[in-house]
Amino acid sequence: MIKNFIELSKSKKTVSKTLVVAAAHDKETLEAINIAERDFNIKYILVGDRNKIISESSNFGFSIASDKIIDTNGDEECVKVAVELIKNDAGDALMKGLLDTGALLKAVLNKKNDIRGTGVLSHMALLEVQKYNKLIGITDGGMIPNPTFEQKVSITTNAAKYFTGIGYDKPKIAALCASETVNEKIPETVDAAELQKQCQNGSLGDCILEGPVSFDIAVDKNSAQKKKYPGKIGGEADILLVPNITVGNVLAKGLIYWAGAKMAGCILGAKIPIVLASRGASAEEKVLSIMMSLIQ
Amino acid sequence: MIKNFIELSKSKKTVSKTLVVAAAHDKETLEAINIAERDFNIKYILVGDRNKIISESSNFGFSIASDKIIDTNGDEECVKVAVELIKNDAGDALMKGLLDTGALLKAVLNKKNDIRGTGVLSHMALLEVQKYNKLIGITDGGMIPNPTFEQKVSITTNAAKYFTGIGYDKPKIAALCASETVNEKIPETVDAAELQKQCQNGSLGDCILEGPVSFDIAVDKNSAQKKKYPGKIGGEADILLVPNITVGNVLAKGLIYWAGAKMAGCILGAKIPIVLASRGASAEEKVLSIMMSLIQ
Repeated sequence: MIKNFIELSKSKKTVSKTLVVAAAHDKETLEAINIAERDFNIKYILVGDRNKIISESSNFGFSIASDKIIDTNGDEECVKVAVELIKNDAGDALMKGLLDTGALLKAVLNKKNDIRGTGVLSHMALLEVQKYNKLIGITDGGMIPNPTFEQKVSITTNAAKYFTGIGYDKPKIAALCASETVNEKIPETVDAAELQKQCQNGSLGDCILEGPVSFDIAVDKNSAQKKKYPGKIGGEADILLVPNITVGNVLAKGLIYWAGAKMAGCILGAKIPIVLASRGASAEEKVLSIMMSLIQ
Repeated sequence: MIKNFIELSKSKKTVSKTLVVAAAHDKETLEAINIAERDFNIKYILVGDRNKIISESSNFGFSIASDKIIDTNGDEECVKVAVELIKNDAGDALMKGLLDTGALLKAVLNKKNDIRGTGVLSHMALLEVQKYNKLIGITDGGMIPNPTFEQKVSITTNAAKYFTGIGYDKPKIAALCASETVNEKIPETVDAAELQKQCQNGSLGDCILEGPVSFDIAVDKNSAQKKKYPGKIGGEADILLVPNITVGNVLAKGLIYWAGAKMAGCILGAKIPIVLASRGASAEEKVLSIMMSLIQ
């Protein structure tokens, strides 16, 4: 169990891990890499416009060794080179710089490049909230709009694999709904119950998934006790599996803006995690997202 | 604009308003009424088992005048009498006590009783969050699971009517989604854009509705400015219109459990507001819900 981002950084598991950045000629991306190297000892390979990378980084005193930059001409070549590096195991995570998201994802999803997994790609947000005694994952609030049941299975296995990869033993996943009641009129409650069944049959990987579960039962022990919740994750969820992108996005933003939460996020399901920072992401969020991707 | 629940209570608009309670023979319900009378000068008519009402209330020193209790025998008679009182304008709000929710709603929805409106019934939550400079409404996170477009129109008009009723001039309603982009794959974004169009045509009552809008743009001025949001509600939403019950329920609970939010809730759309406190509701939530219902 990782209590918060400070503890995560202290674990030093990011040391000597290498980040491959596609289109690194971007001020904010370079700032985040600078901090991640200084504070967390990450390594990196910057793919993109060498001159721009050097001029941008020198503006804030970030000195980059020449052999850490691969000069490319245009987005297409940049993506090709970055993906080739990952394919050849030269990096532990891939980060998008000043580049269209679609262009990068297209290359990742291209089976020829051999860096996508067998399942779907999904987004995992990792949040630190003052009122919770450990980090909480939210998935998928950023990638798949309205997942089918099969996609929910993939989202779950991606999540379980990530959490066991960073040291959790059987992460507790709550299939989040408005209540604990299965209601045919609310399809996510039916899916949640079916996911719980599949988990009990051992087909969802190394995790404990229960649902449908309401937010309070998932993360608040008093509430779980008061409502006599019979499951194993009452108040102790590690991951909230949300039924669609809107639930995840609204919850995460609600916690960031009104509960002082800090967030990291990355795309799971490929050979390596992919950092796709959103347009509104703070420098801190970008640094935490890099760490989150390299800690595995 | 009401800044918080203290300001709402100071407005004293609840003075001399009358609450009709169906099946008032319930400890927690009586405690909430006791506080609402003491602190906010509400009046009440308690329908239910007279002996139980008197014995429960005497346990904590709540003295009830004899003429404020109407003795009934069993749930059916209790609901009938309570609904008859509302029908005859003897009360300004209806509260459920120790009673099956379905039994009360069935009577409310029965057209013969003439207390339901022309539209649908919908849930309105009113939250006080430390980080926001005014109360925020969330609708519908408690009644209609997956509203159709037509039901979203009714939820919106119920919300607008309630807010103008408590003194708002053109309340600002954000049709909440994961982003500002209309995406055919995410039906709620299409509905949100259509609701905005209908609002501009003046068919949604006295309000400003904009959507699709993300949470940060709805309630955070910096974010709205940074993203150059062109609308009128950037960072100033009074009401978050959520696309389905799960988004509203998860957001409200996230704010209550992790952002220290206080909440009140009631059902709108009938002739009068209806207080249906949930099984997990605190005494404070019940009191605030009574006030919220009587302030109109």
